[in-house]
Amino acid sequence: MAVSFVHVPAGSDFPLENLPYGVFSTKANPRKRLGVAIGDNVLDLSGVASFYPPEVQDALNAESLNKLMSLGYTAWNVVRTKTRELLLKNSVLEQNAALVQSVIVPQKECEMHLPAEIGDYTDFYSSIHHATNVGIMFRGKENALMPNWRHIPVGYHGRASSVVVSGTPIRRPLGQTLPVDGQPPVFGPCRLLDFELEMAFFIGGPGNQLGERIPVEEAWKNVFGFTLMNDWSARDIQKWEYVPLGPFTAKNLGTTISPWVIPVAALEPFLVDNYPQEPEVFPYLKHQKPFNFDINLEVYLKAENSSETKICKSNYKYLYWTAMQQIAHHTVTGCNVRPGDLMASGTISGETEDSYGSMLELSWRGAKTINLNDGATRKFLQDGDEIIIRGYCESNGVRIGFGECAGKVLPATPFQ
Amino acid sequence: MAVSFVHVPAGSDFPLENLPYGVFSTKANPRKRLGVAIGDNVLDLSGVASFYPPEVQDALNAESLNKLMSLGYTAWNVVRTKTRELLLKNSVLEQNAALVQSVIVPQKECEMHLPAEIGDYTDFYSSIHHATNVGIMFRGKENALMPNWRHIPVGYHGRASSVVVSGTPIRRPLGQTLPVDGQPPVFGPCRLLDFELEMAFFIGGPGNQLGERIPVEEAWKNVFGFTLMNDWSARDIQKWEYVPLGPFTAKNLGTTISPWVIPVAALEPFLVDNYPQEPEVFPYLKHQKPFNFDINLEVYLKAENSSETKICKSNYKYLYWTAMQQIAHHTVTGCNVRPGDLMASGTISGETEDSYGSMLELSWRGAKTINLNDGATRKFLQDGDEIIIRGYCESNGVRIGFGECAGKVLPATPFQ
Repeated sequence: MAVSFVHVPAGSDFPLENLPYGVFSTKANPRKRLGVAIGDNVLDLSGVASFYPPEVQDALNAESLNKLMSLGYTAWNVVRTKTRELLLKNSVLEQNAALVQSVIVPQKECEMHLPAEIGDYTDFYSSIHHATNVGIMFRGKENALMPNWRHIPVGYHGRASSVVVSGTPIRRPLGQTLPVDGQPPVFGPCRLLDFELEMAFFIGGPGNQLGERIPVEEAWKNVFGFTLMNDWSARDIQKWEYVPLGPFTAKNLGTTISPWVIPVAALEPFLVDNYPQEPEVFPYLKHQKPFNFDINLEVYLKAENSSETKICKSNYKYLYWTAMQQIAHHTVTGCNVRPGDLMASGTISGETEDSYGSMLELSWRGAKTINLNDGATRKFLQDGDEIIIRGYCESNGVRIGFGECAGKVLPATPFQ
Repeated sequence: MAVSFVHVPAGSDFPLENLPYGVFSTKANPRKRLGVAIGDNVLDLSGVASFYPPEVQDALNAESLNKLMSLGYTAWNVVRTKTRELLLKNSVLEQNAALVQSVIVPQKECEMHLPAEIGDYTDFYSSIHHATNVGIMFRGKENALMPNWRHIPVGYHGRASSVVVSGTPIRRPLGQTLPVDGQPPVFGPCRLLDFELEMAFFIGGPGNQLGERIPVEEAWKNVFGFTLMNDWSARDIQKWEYVPLGPFTAKNLGTTISPWVIPVAALEPFLVDNYPQEPEVFPYLKHQKPFNFDINLEVYLKAENSSETKICKSNYKYLYWTAMQQIAHHTVTGCNVRPGDLMASGTISGETEDSYGSMLELSWRGAKTINLNDGATRKFLQDGDEIIIRGYCESNGVRIGFGECAGKVLPATPFQ
């Protein structure tokens, strides 16, 4: 097994097989720059760009991943191969001790930033278990899935400006709610604040022009890599506002992503069959290529001054619609996508009650309580609660980890 | 009355009182640069930037309006005052014939571009007549307005990438529809393609940080200026996809805006009372300042090889919610807005049948026909149809025009 000259502790999320991309800065050098995680360290790509072919050097010296994303999958492979080569034992890099000293940076010294300038952010609704759960709660068992759900990868346009990197605190929002049907609405702090366990991918490649479509079989070329996501949701605000145009302010209070973008190449060993689809989908959504991944997902709740409780264990593979289908559907009307666009899965719930990806489902709309380690209970999130999402693939002793997607709830600012 | 040394033809949209901003290039100089429309010409701001105070010169030399937008209303006033001064008869500019020659560019030589890099695009639903009409058609007279409508400036996140400048053709989209309830959906070209008469404003000022709110009384400081908008809509696709998360691919096929951004200062003489609101709105939405405008809006349909027919005559003043309320609501949950963000009104329908701002309403969901000049009729848009939106304010012999927001429907590309 190939080994890096940079020490990778046992169980690390970031072995030589992973090589995820992020954007970081340090106190010593506050310029944002691209890095690749390796063990507990980061390889500063701006410091080694000259080892790469000339056509990718500009992208490696950029302040966000957008340029690298735009170069397309052939260039991504070139960069990945060279990065691996540089990190191997006895590489030209290792032999230059002074350079190693400057370009291998401990992660604990790094401030992580959003990996890309996100042009547009789309949120899908692609977990059949989540859509079914929500449907049962709000419309009953008979009408759980909407008639369009198995035909369309349902999704909606989200708010790009409010996507933030892991670690950014999230303030409990104010808003309008309708506590009692038929009574007037009330205004005040959200009472049903929730997380949503999601994954998201960044669009890469040249994208498409307005009026063109991306064919489903080609769509994989536009997937640069994946992150974890928490799509914070104000359930009570959502319920009152969402008819007929969908969620709006209930979702724009903040959306957290993990800082490391895991390249599709690192996930290929964990490909599994696509989720069986019934009825058959339209040809524009049909693809043979497997593009589903066995990615373990976990959600932890850490109350203030307490320890973490694992409250959910799910998996990316439960998604009904693939990222390729999501892209094909998104562009079927001619919508243009651009490198750096973010597309999220929607809440990923599994089949069992411990695999539900939101407090709404875990507490079954408040009918049940969620028990924490320290004896406390929850139905929805309280101020001071931190939600930490972790994800990893594991097989044959190789672990491809996603790092953390974390955020803590701050109390609402009173309305003056 | 003050007069410009640049000739302004009678009835021009762009007199000295207007001075709207746009981004243009020419064959001779393909660099995108800022301009101000005056009569049939454009003043190239990059060519006269040195006349302005140093703190705004960078913004005037930029390739989009984002930087100028970010400077805030004090700087906007400084720029506007200086621009007017330069364009007056006997100005220092007029006295420099060589400079005039290079910075006064005929509009017919200009290619216009999107005025700003749009970070996020939000579409509201703020016309009470439009919301009522759609409600009657789809839910009957009794339940026409949703219960939340008079409490919330309802809106949703749109797709920023597919906003295009006037003149860009729009391709008829493919998509899924459900022609017969209870039968399987079908896939093919949209059959109910529509326009939506809207106006939009660009966010200016520093914006706000995630987790902060913009107080309603301060919100006017964040309105840079207004454009016309056509929010093209695939009604049949929308009907099948929009429950429960709102319009998605039915709206991302293209959204057209007019190239000239009319500053709020130019619209102030046309302020009218805000629309009366009943019941009383929550304090976070209440403001005393009038922020409603008497802007005449017209929609023309030009079939291929035919002349224009005026099919709608409406007015911005029919909007129930003000731009200040839209901003306050958008940010009440802590959503951050940024200079260059675009916020649209939603379809602006008036009280009478000839003032409805969409084919859906004008043809009353296909129950009526719309007569064109040449004897042809329409219920929805046909391939080759061009929709041209025009707008203007007029009083005491002063006309502040918006130019045109135009786009032509191209036939669908068949699915292979």
